[in-house]
Amino acid sequence: MVQCYSPPFDAAFAALADVTRRGVLERLARGDASITDLATRFGMTLTGMMKHVGVLEQAGLVTTEKRGRVRECRLGPRRLDEEATWIENYRRLWNARFDALDEVVLELQRKEKRDGIRNRR
Amino acid sequence: MVQCYSPPFDAAFAALADVTRRGVLERLARGDASITDLATRFGMTLTGMMKHVGVLEQAGLVTTEKRGRVRECRLGPRRLDEEATWIENYRRLWNARFDALDEVVLELQRKEKRDGIRNRR
Repeated sequence: MVQCYSPPFDAAFAALADVTRRGVLERLARGDASITDLATRFGMTLTGMMKHVGVLEQAGLVTTEKRGRVRECRLGPRRLDEEATWIENYRRLWNARFDALDEVVLELQRKEKRDGIRNRR
Repeated sequence: MVQCYSPPFDAAFAALADVTRRGVLERLARGDASITDLATRFGMTLTGMMKHVGVLEQAGLVTTEKRGRVRECRLGPRRLDEEATWIENYRRLWNARFDALDEVVLELQRKEKRDGIRNRR
């Protein structure tokens, strides 16, 4: 399995571990928005929203630009490709692991059945 | 986009935001292991590894069982299905957003070319 050790990989997962930050990404996918728009939309203070946007910006998921007195936010360059790949590989390993365990259980059941028949003879 | 607001969803992403915890999941996908095995494998103290395993357990990614003096760890029930779906939807929205921006840029370039031709006449 390809391991991704880079800090951006940690930062992206950490950024996604919050419902407001996921909501901000979904909102920005529909169009750019100012920090004020986002704060209003999510019922937060400006300071609270600036913190969330800061976490997303650090992870490369959002970029911001100051225009006069307004800070505009838009989706950043990070498209979550590596994160998607990691999760996909994990799910494949998970399935393989549990298929293997199922096989062990089936084999035990078959053995029990054979022993039962042998004991009844 | 289907939103996932449940705390387990936050907990799973937070659990993945650490290279050691991702490594533990990859290790357990190949077979069960004790906390001691994992601590040795990742060059950590038992206490440090117990904390990481605790985070993974809270997120449903690992289950543990005490056998005598050994705590055995195995993959938990959470297969990261919702997390994979969220990321996949996000990537689709991201692509749509940037395709739309590309179209705006192309349209501006076409307009500029038309205006240039008109001005030369």
